[in-house]
Order: sequence, then structure tokens, then C-alpha cells
Amino acid sequence: MKIAILPGDGIGPEIVAQAVKVLNALDEPFELETAPVGGAGYEASGHPLPEATLALAQAADAVLFGAVGDWKYDTLDRPLRPEQAILGLRKNLGLFANLRPAILYPELAGASTLKPEVVSGLDILIIRELTGDIYFGQPRGVRECPDGPFKGQREGFDTMRYAEGEIRRIAHVAFQAAQKRDKRLTSVDKANVLETFQFWKDIVTDVHKEYPDVALDHMYVDNAAMQLVRAPKKFDVIVTGNMFGDILSDAAAMLTGSIGMLPSASLDANNKGLYEPSHGSAPDIAGKGVANPLATILSAAMMLRYSLGRAEQADRIENAVKAVLAQGLRTPDIYEDGTRKIGTEQMGDAVVAALA
Amino acid sequence: MKIAILPGDGIGPEIVAQAVKVLNALDEPFELETAPVGGAGYEASGHPLPEATLALAQAADAVLFGAVGDWKYDTLDRPLRPEQAILGLRKNLGLFANLRPAILYPELAGASTLKPEVVSGLDILIIRELTGDIYFGQPRGVRECPDGPFKGQREGFDTMRYAEGEIRRIAHVAFQAAQKRDKRLTSVDKANVLETFQFWKDIVTDVHKEYPDVALDHMYVDNAAMQLVRAPKKFDVIVTGNMFGDILSDAAAMLTGSIGMLPSASLDANNKGLYEPSHGSAPDIAGKGVANPLATILSAAMMLRYSLGRAEQADRIENAVKAVLAQGLRTPDIYEDGTRKIGTEQMGDAVVAALA
Ligand SMILES: CC(C)[C@H](C(=O)O)[C@@H](O)C(=O)O
Ligand SMILES: CC(C)[C@H](C(=O)O)[C@@H](O)C(=O)O
Repeated sequence: MKIAILPGDGIGPEIVAQAVKVLNALDEPFELETAPVGGAGYEASGHPLPEATLALAQAADAVLFGAVGDWKYDTLDRPLRPEQAILGLRKNLGLFANLRPAILYPELAGASTLKPEVVSGLDILIIRELTGDIYFGQPRGVRECPDGPFKGQREGFDTMRYAEGEIRRIAHVAFQAAQKRDKRLTSVDKANVLETFQFWKDIVTDVHKEYPDVALDHMYVDNAAMQLVRAPKKFDVIVTGNMFGDILSDAAAMLTGSIGMLPSASLDANNKGLYEPSHGSAPDIAGKGVANPLATILSAAMMLRYSLGRAEQADRIENAVKAVLAQGLRTPDIYEDGTRKIGTEQMGDAVVAALA
Repeated sequence: MKIAILPGDGIGPEIVAQAVKVLNALDEPFELETAPVGGAGYEASGHPLPEATLALAQAADAVLFGAVGDWKYDTLDRPLRPEQAILGLRKNLGLFANLRPAILYPELAGASTLKPEVVSGLDILIIRELTGDIYFGQPRGVRECPDGPFKGQREGFDTMRYAEGEIRRIAHVAFQAAQKRDKRLTSVDKANVLETFQFWKDIVTDVHKEYPDVALDHMYVDNAAMQLVRAPKKFDVIVTGNMFGDILSDAAAMLTGSIGMLPSASLDANNKGLYEPSHGSAPDIAGKGVANPLATILSAAMMLRYSLGRAEQADRIENAVKAVLAQGLRTPDIYEDGTRKIGTEQMGDAVVAALA
């Protein structure tokens, strides 16, 4: 089985190196091939998603992705900026289902800005549609305002849209995920204002007929943002569109206070996927050996489970991560009094040691 | 001076009654006229925003609004649902600037789900554009998908758009608000994905030239949602579009844990405005005399300050609210051990008494 390794920018290379170390320690016949992406892709060949990198990702059985972005690319034209690589990979690989668990590890409860009783034991799964919505809808651009009081001025515009089949397939993913958990699904929309999301709500309601064992409720996105702050443990699985999911999944991740721990999976229709930490490229700490590699290592575990059919190996890694936390080992982002502060490489080594 | 009083549905009438009591106690020559809106408007004349109600609001110097919505209207066609009244009022009155303070009263610090050190002293102002964006953009609807892999299926779609003049005027409001506070403005966008918000960012950056005394920074909406949870006190004033503002202002309100305390103002170009509590119509507790009227009373104070040129009276009301909190008086939503639980009417009476 072939895994494309795309380390990217900032802390990407150093955290991905730890996940690779863990993968190699599993003694599986995986073939790992590395390619540049993001700013590194731009440096290597003038484009954030070089053709060879895309070809490698397409040919592989799964992609392990680090992070992209650095302030030094902020002045590039938008199509050349690092984040276009991740949008291009999602679209070209058809990765429509983004799974983002927000889990609070008991050992790290203190890291949350929320009161312990509000977040202890938090375990929610946000499922974000990833290849539709206003992210990719056409037409879009800057044009002359065609009507209304600002007619004739310049205006920026974008198109939000969801086709029936796009909503159906993400709804199926969400209902099936809920079936494996607490069987409760919250579909987040803005049906009181948006045609797209009234349509979304209608289709999700229709798909629900096939999953009578799952309890479905609908919530407006503004209310969902409030409930995530007020009582996040009331959620089990949340499903929503690309734009709302971008906002809510980051908010949910931050509830845990330890975004350095949270993996993500982006899957296509055949469970091929791209796996990446939920956090960004953190250029400010790149190269210092202090970044937390656990979100990337846990992303590798998700890859083993969802794309490579190696659930036991995924369990091994997840248990190894729990073991190093129980040993009191912490990178600086999750350090607190009474624990032992270690660096990126040491954390990778500790997970490898705990695999045994 | 004429004030239109639109109580609306659910707890709307009972909380607005308390604010009216407070306004009457000021001994100002205000003329108050009441009209039905929302579900009440639909009951009275078949439309959530009856013509006479709109005419009254247009003729008035300011509008005091309660809340709209009740589950019993959920099955109506969308144009007849209560929330259409608020969208119609915003659009018809040109109320493009929504000001939503998120303030944590020291006495209520315990109500927040966040740790006291994260939120104590919180005082941020969210300025949400209210008449543009994807809320009103045309075209929108359900159509046959014109292209791509889902071609021929039904799709829901909406148009996000912002004209230059729309962005300029809300930016001016935001910079001027920041000048009266800590002189820091965060413009929230999604310029890395949306053409509308790259344009937004460019225009806000341009308007900044006229306000060199204000420090401006730009933040992506997903990051803003995270920073509101992580370190909300770092913000001073936030300005953003209608859709992102809907989500972020509710999240920010919930950080305080006492959304029953938070007022809002929606202003036109001449400081005429509509004033309403940040919370909803809470039909589950309507008529029980337990709703917190303070957000509505504080909305009346904002009305006095922004639309009626009565800043001293606004101060009087705000000080009276602080006084009743200091006296330990609490409606059930903000009650905790050691304070005195009272009802809606008693709270209104207590504020009137504290005005003296
Ligand atoms: C970098 C950006 C385009 C991206 C997104 O908005 O999807 C990021 O925020 C994410 O969530 O992966
Ligand atoms: C009721 C709804 C249309 C409205 C909005 O989305 O603007 C509400 O959520 C608000 O924020 O006032």
C-alpha cells in the first residue's frame, strides 16, 4: 500500500517526521513517498500544488498531510498561495467528507478555557462537507454591481450552492457515523435565511428515513455556535456544510484547549482519504523542535482505520498516545505543572516506545 | 419624539412592558405607539410584518423591538414566518449597522461556562453588517444544477455579495466606534477563500487610511471563532459581514453566560435605529413572568443614546441596572446561591426604583 507524505510548511515537516517514524515502527508493508506542497511546492516548482505532487496523491491509497502556509507567501496572488494546495487536493481527490473529532483527554482537561464540568469527557464528531458550498460555487469574482442602491459600483460576489446528491452523500456518511456512536445527529443549517440550507434541511430529513435508529435534530448555525459554548457535551455527531463546518469545527476544537491533539480525516466516496492535524503550520515555532506531533500521529491512526483497513494498528497508536499522556510527557503547548516538558522528536520517540 | 414599540411573540410582550415602564419613568416627552409583529403580526393581519407596523416603524424616530418566533409558526411558508419580520424591518429601514456589545457584569461572572480568568472584565463590541451579504443577495432559490458532476439534479443556491459602498459605510461605523473605545479593530473575513471577503478586506484596509489612530488587524472567521473561545478579552471591536456576524455575535454573547443581559442596536445612516435584546422569544417560558427584562431595558438605554440624543438618560438606566445587580436581585436565568430570585415585573420595578 502506498502512502503519499506531504509535509508542507512551517512545523509540517517536523510533525510529519514523527508520524512517519510511528508508521515505520508498525512493521507493515507500506510504501511511503514524499512530495512538496504549499509554500514548499511553490518554492520547488512555482505552484502550491505541483503536478507531480497531485499525481502522487492521486496514485496513493492515502495521503498524510502536515500543514501549509507562512506569512512570507501572503503577498502572492491568491492562486499561488499555500492554502490553494489544500483546496486543490480536496477538489481533485473528491474528498467530500471531513471528519473532525473534538475529544478532551482527561489528562489535559486543565488546558481548556472552559470550566471542567462543561468539557470533561467531551467527545463530539463534526462532519463537514468539503467539496461544495460557497468554497467552490461559480460564478464568483469582482464585478460591477448590477442593481440596487449600489448599482454601478464594484462588488465582490460568490455563489453558495449544494446539489441534492452532494447533500445525500454527506448525510449518509453522517448517519452511518452516528450509528457507530451515540446515534444522535445534529444537522446545522441556516434554513430560516438561506435557500441552500432550506434545501439541505429537506434532503437530510429525507435521508433520515433510511436511518430510523438515529435521532436527528436540526439547529441554526448561530444557535449551534452558542450551544458549543454553553453545553458542548450535548452533541454527539454534527453534520454541516463547508463554510459553517469551517467555523464550527475550529470552535469545537478550541473548546478542548489542546488543538495540538486533534486529528482529521477527509474522505472520498471509496474511503480513500487525506489525513492532517486540525491545527495550522505555526510558522512562528517552526524548526524549534517544540511543536506537538500528536495530532499528526493520531491522523496517521485515522488513516490506518479508514483508508488502510488496519483498525488494530490504529488502536495501537491511539493507546500509545494515551500511554505517553499518562506517563506525564507533554510538549510545551499542553505542558502544566507536575508534567514533564519534552520536544517534538522526543514525543515521537515516546509514542514509538509505547507501541511495544 | 415618537418610539414604535413592537413587542412580538413569546416573552416579547412581557419584557418590552418592563422597558416601557422604565421609559415612562424618565419623564421625557416620548410618544410611544405599539404594533404587532412576527407571529403576532401574522395573527393580526396575515403577515409577520403588517403594512401598518412597517409604516409606524418608518415614521418613528426609533423602534423598540421585543422578539419574534414560536414553534407554532414553523409550518408556515417561509415568507410568512415570524423571522421574516425582522429581515423586512432591517431592509426597509436601511438598518445596516448592528452593534452588539458582549459585556460580562462582574456580579454575573459565575454564569459563564468559561473560566473566570478568561472572561472576567470582558467588554467587546461586535459590529455586524446587517442589510447585505448572502442574506439578501440575488439570485437565490432551487434550480436545476447547471454543471459539474451533479448536473441536472436539483440544487439550492444563494448569492453572497458586498458592494464597495456597503463595506465602506460599515467600516466607518466600526472605526468610529473603535475610536471611542480602545482604538483596536479586528475585521473578520474569509479572504483566503471568498472573493466577497477579499474585496471586503481590501476596502476596509483602504478606509483605515482615514483612521490612523485605530489599530486594524484582519482575521479569518474560523480563527476568530477560535480566538473568541481561547482569549476573548484580546478583542476590542470586531467588524464583519452579515453571515459571519450572525454566528460570531451569538458565540460572543454566550461567552458571558448571561445572554439575558445583552442589548443590541441596528442603525441606519442617520442613527435612527431598531433596538432589541440579543436573545430570542423563548416561547417555552412565555407568560410565566420569569423572563429577564434587562436586555430589553438596556436596549432602551442604547436607543436613548444612539437615536434620541439622551445620553444622560441612557447612563441613568445603565447605572440603575448595575444597582439592581449590586442589590442581589436576579431573574431565574442569572440566579445563583446568595442572591434573591425575582420575576420579570419585579425586575422592571426594581430598575424604575433604582433610577431615582
Ligand atoms: C486554509 C483554508 C482554505 C481551510 C478552509 O477554510 O477550509 C482551513 O481553514 C481548513 O479548515 O482546512
Ligand atoms: C431570525 C434570524 C433571521 C436572525 C438572523 O439570522 O439575522 C437572527 O438570528 C438574528 O441574529 O437576529
